[in-house]
Amino acid sequence: MIDFCLFGAGLIGSVHAANLGRHPMVRFRYIVDPRPEAAQRIAALTGAEIVDAQTALDDPELQAVMIASATKTHADIATAAAQKGKAIFCEKPIDLDIGRTDACLAAVAKAGVIFQIGFNRRFDPSFRSLKRRLADKEIGAVEQVIITSRDPEPESEEALAGGGGVFREMTIHDFDMARNLLGEEPVELFATGSSLVSPAYARLGDYDTAMFVMRTASGRQCHINNSVRASYGYDQRIEVHGSEGMLRAGNRVPTSVEISNGSAISTDKPLYFFVERYAESYAAELDHFIGCIQTGQQPDVGAEDGRKAMILCEAALASAKSGRFEPIRY
Amino acid sequence: MIDFCLFGAGLIGSVHAANLGRHPMVRFRYIVDPRPEAAQRIAALTGAEIVDAQTALDDPELQAVMIASATKTHADIATAAAQKGKAIFCEKPIDLDIGRTDACLAAVAKAGVIFQIGFNRRFDPSFRSLKRRLADKEIGAVEQVIITSRDPEPESEEALAGGGGVFREMTIHDFDMARNLLGEEPVELFATGSSLVSPAYARLGDYDTAMFVMRTASGRQCHINNSVRASYGYDQRIEVHGSEGMLRAGNRVPTSVEISNGSAISTDKPLYFFVERYAESYAAELDHFIGCIQTGQQPDVGAEDGRKAMILCEAALASAKSGRFEPIRY
Amino acid sequence: MIDFCLFGAGLIGSVHAANLGRHPMVRFRYIVDPRPEAAQRIAALTGAEIVDAQTALDDPELQAVMIASATKTHADIATAAAQKGKAIFCEKPIDLDIGRTDACLAAVAKAGVIFQIGFNRRFDPSFRSLKRRLADKEIGAVEQVIITSRDPEPESEEALAGGGGVFREMTIHDFDMARNLLGEEPVELFATGSSLVSPAYARLGDYDTAMFVMRTASGRQCHINNSVRASYGYDQRIEVHGSEGMLRAGNRVPTSVEISNGSAISTDKPLYFFVERYAESYAAELDHFIGCIQTGQQPDVGAEDGRKAMILCEAALASAKSGRFEPIRY
Amino acid sequence: MIDFCLFGAGLIGSVHAANLGRHPMVRFRYIVDPRPEAAQRIAALTGAEIVDAQTALDDPELQAVMIASATKTHADIATAAAQKGKAIFCEKPIDLDIGRTDACLAAVAKAGVIFQIGFNRRFDPSFRSLKRRLADKEIGAVEQVIITSRDPEPESEEALAGGGGVFREMTIHDFDMARNLLGEEPVELFATGSSLVSPAYARLGDYDTAMFVMRTASGRQCHINNSVRASYGYDQRIEVHGSEGMLRAGNRVPTSVEISNGSAISTDKPLYFFVERYAESYAAELDHFIGCIQTGQQPDVGAEDGRKAMILCEAALASAKSGRFEPIRY
Repeated sequence: MIDFCLFGAGLIGSVHAANLGRHPMVRFRYIVDPRPEAAQRIAALTGAEIVDAQTALDDPELQAVMIASATKTHADIATAAAQKGKAIFCEKPIDLDIGRTDACLAAVAKAGVIFQIGFNRRFDPSFRSLKRRLADKEIGAVEQVIITSRDPEPESEEALAGGGGVFREMTIHDFDMARNLLGEEPVELFATGSSLVSPAYARLGDYDTAMFVMRTASGRQCHINNSVRASYGYDQRIEVHGSEGMLRAGNRVPTSVEISNGSAISTDKPLYFFVERYAESYAAELDHFIGCIQTGQQPDVGAEDGRKAMILCEAALASAKSGRFEPIRY
Repeated sequence: MIDFCLFGAGLIGSVHAANLGRHPMVRFRYIVDPRPEAAQRIAALTGAEIVDAQTALDDPELQAVMIASATKTHADIATAAAQKGKAIFCEKPIDLDIGRTDACLAAVAKAGVIFQIGFNRRFDPSFRSLKRRLADKEIGAVEQVIITSRDPEPESEEALAGGGGVFREMTIHDFDMARNLLGEEPVELFATGSSLVSPAYARLGDYDTAMFVMRTASGRQCHINNSVRASYGYDQRIEVHGSEGMLRAGNRVPTSVEISNGSAISTDKPLYFFVERYAESYAAELDHFIGCIQTGQQPDVGAEDGRKAMILCEAALASAKSGRFEPIRY
Repeated sequence: MIDFCLFGAGLIGSVHAANLGRHPMVRFRYIVDPRPEAAQRIAALTGAEIVDAQTALDDPELQAVMIASATKTHADIATAAAQKGKAIFCEKPIDLDIGRTDACLAAVAKAGVIFQIGFNRRFDPSFRSLKRRLADKEIGAVEQVIITSRDPEPESEEALAGGGGVFREMTIHDFDMARNLLGEEPVELFATGSSLVSPAYARLGDYDTAMFVMRTASGRQCHINNSVRASYGYDQRIEVHGSEGMLRAGNRVPTSVEISNGSAISTDKPLYFFVERYAESYAAELDHFIGCIQTGQQPDVGAEDGRKAMILCEAALASAKSGRFEPIRY
Repeated sequence: MIDFCLFGAGLIGSVHAANLGRHPMVRFRYIVDPRPEAAQRIAALTGAEIVDAQTALDDPELQAVMIASATKTHADIATAAAQKGKAIFCEKPIDLDIGRTDACLAAVAKAGVIFQIGFNRRFDPSFRSLKRRLADKEIGAVEQVIITSRDPEPESEEALAGGGGVFREMTIHDFDMARNLLGEEPVELFATGSSLVSPAYARLGDYDTAMFVMRTASGRQCHINNSVRASYGYDQRIEVHGSEGMLRAGNRVPTSVEISNGSAISTDKPLYFFVERYAESYAAELDHFIGCIQTGQQPDVGAEDGRKAMILCEAALASAKSGRFEPIRY
């Protein structure tokens, strides 16, 4: 059994809490959150004890931390946990600032602890199958990747104000997926963003609708399209074109029921949002993290992946302003 | 918490064991199986204690039994459990003999205990959604029901020899689904069976390939097609035609990945067999059973459903021999 | 160029007229119909001359007749055309009476003329592809065939009164398709019919909703389901199960457009009725007929096919009354 | 009847020739092509007379010309035809040079003749349905358009050497479709091209794999992806995201047959190339042109559409070199 502490009792923290609570290899010891009600809700469901960060990290039996707290706290918690020799699972982004990100990752590297970044989509059964089939050369060499990633509805202005902006909160997952599928690092990135959905984004200098193009040194290309609103539900699709064909992974629907009537033939909308769509991914990424703790191997999605995705976010922010294909300097 | 005893540590018993083991309202106390190895496997996974039937049933704290043992033992265990006042979940069929079935159900009725029959497909999310939409009159009045039900591969001759034949082991689920969807009891049934897949079935006087037609008093019709082999995996589909349209529920696939290449556009095969396809159904039927124990209400799928499906099996066996539309006498 | 006469200027006659009018190998000489307005409409569109049957058949340059007139006239026209040595394309059924059918086919055989029966669905691109792939053993040996065949809406009572009943007007196509796909002649047939859609059918002693099961000598099985109403449009599907897989052919839709919105994901309904769905089939069966005239070979769908499908209709009528698996005597 | 002359007896000319040959309102008088064999082939099939351009244009009975000759001849033929008062259907592009394009369109405008440009995809039944449903506000206001456009295989180096490059020969159709669907003119365009498929393109300074992003003044965005190779056949898809949902139009397949076997569930590949996929579009654009000749109205796809699509091509060529979001100056 592995003793865990969870930092953060919000929406994403609750998802992790449920998986920690039912995992046969986990003893879910501590929940840390400055908001007592949120912490108590998770404590009640799982039996985890509410403590402060220091208490948790000081417990020599604690082996692993899951960091799902506010973005600005990630780097400090990860750094402290690394210094205590804990295995670290950290939600993305590590930090909105590259300098702080690098400092945190240096502390992690120095401590030599297991570090996994929460790019959960890598563990989606369909995306994982697609990736494996790419690796098996089922469609030859990759030439173009097209990623569709659209949230069901915009966030409230309050939630937005506390975040890192759409590119660093939402597109970062797509940037990681692009890196994962292209088979080469992107070296140039173009971005354009608009305000078409909710004025709250524009008021914060952010975009609610965006398109991206990347290319690698050999000329492979990737397009991403984003919107903060999809009336039909969470839209998460991947399309990869190779020299010998195309692989696609589509959305997931709650049932297979289809109705034919005087109007149309209709099926279910996609699952509503990430909690439903990526339920299996969150469980699988925890399995992977625990497997790494047991074997001592670094996770497949680690510190460098977190850092490089952030650098793509920076390039995207620059390109959206410059209107240029921005070089990417890792 | 509700104390459970599971009878039967075979394939279907293992499915129930896993669900009992992870259910937050269940204390999985006892496993009963005459085969020590099978029982030990489940005990090791779940912490259930291996006991004999009498010991389990004599425990006054035991509230519920799940009967997933050999078919011929169902009626005796259910009768004994009823006499001890336990809530009973019984895999289908209750017994291969209608007389013994009736005697068992009389004991259950006399004891007034909760009794649920294991028609798990009623709890499949897609079939349940289809049924609800029928009830909501989305396609008006039901006119025809078409049920496709095909196993991935034939059973071994040993397994067959111990069973009740294809109609009572396999089609019984389809008969229950037909009753569930037609909205009226079938009053006539036609069946024809062939030996096209495996000579083992014919040697036992059984069929490996069959078609059925039923009708209700008002003239609603239902077709079922069965085979013990589907090279592409478990094929479980429903199609309902009503006065204002058609509702269909299809198979489930492991991923949404699609490949387009020089040969074709191809997607995943359906999930392999009932353990995978009906994983959610088994969990949901247990939830329903537990909810009934808590509220004291009889389950939606109870003794009468078990009995009537068996009567349809009898009519099917008669029709396959007589070549006639056989009347159904409940 | 081949000189043609068309008998019948109704709906199906109009479909044939359009194809005759645009076929590069056809000189569309004559249209025969007792209803002057109908005949004139076709004459105006195609340049065909309105004549009586005798005039047309007496023309020694006339090589071919297409018989799309009222059912009761088919046998007489075909017999007369055979005696004049014309190639004959005859809409199904040849006659509602088997005795008259046999007499007509005897005259055709004696004359040795080309005779094709209008089972157009054999020429549907999807059904033809499915049949070829069956012949190529893509799914091994055929075991079960399932045919869905549902008209968009019931006919008027006037139209019904002049026809041969649903089995001989509608199911006859499905019987032919069953024979075409089973690879063996059906030897037993079960039918049941209901009155669920329109009382007009019942008043005429007919059925508007029906199900059928057939089997061949080796035990292959076929199910057909029929309705005279499908609110979503013409429903024409085939599913064949073989020892190594399943082949299906579905409906055709007017466009590939799909909408995703807050309600559902929806696509087009199937094409409305046979004129739209089988447009390519009608053109292709004419091509086949002309090819046979040119080469002197008998068509792939000939006199025996017309006769055997009628015998299946007779067995179905008998079974719907007897409630028995009726033997089929060709 | 309208007298037509066709210029060009190549692949696209042959498609138009067949449609001219069977159109009930067309008298297909002349075919003009410097290659005698090509001209004779079309003459033999349609009865058109082989003449030189001058003879055709001098015929006062000639009402309409279809220009499907080599790109560099389009502007001169169109200018001459305009001066003779003929209705003009001109394949895209009008000319590779904007100055020559403008001069030609000035002559057309001065003559006041009907002028239609060959953007056949506007007449594809699925794309036309999608466009109509956009206009009906089925998904609210347009926000993003995604166009997938991939040829089945690269052209030979000889064919490439005589053409205008991938952007002006292939992407031009996608640029027109983008304009058609965005509902506003694009004002900025980003393009990137690679050499991943065939070195012939790179040798000519061209690209075989490309991605584009455009935006309109209000911030609507459009992505296009192109490749000269799709092993599964011609890939022509459109996806439009609006404020209230998504509309998509997919590829067309030859049959509806689906096979399920031990490997996968597989359907037909898309139709091979534009001749098959856009067969209905070519017929429909001719219908539209003839309708315009009859009513005197200018076609829905006219001179300005041809010119603006070329300007987008120019911007794309500039952007692929500059790496910048290029402003579009119409």
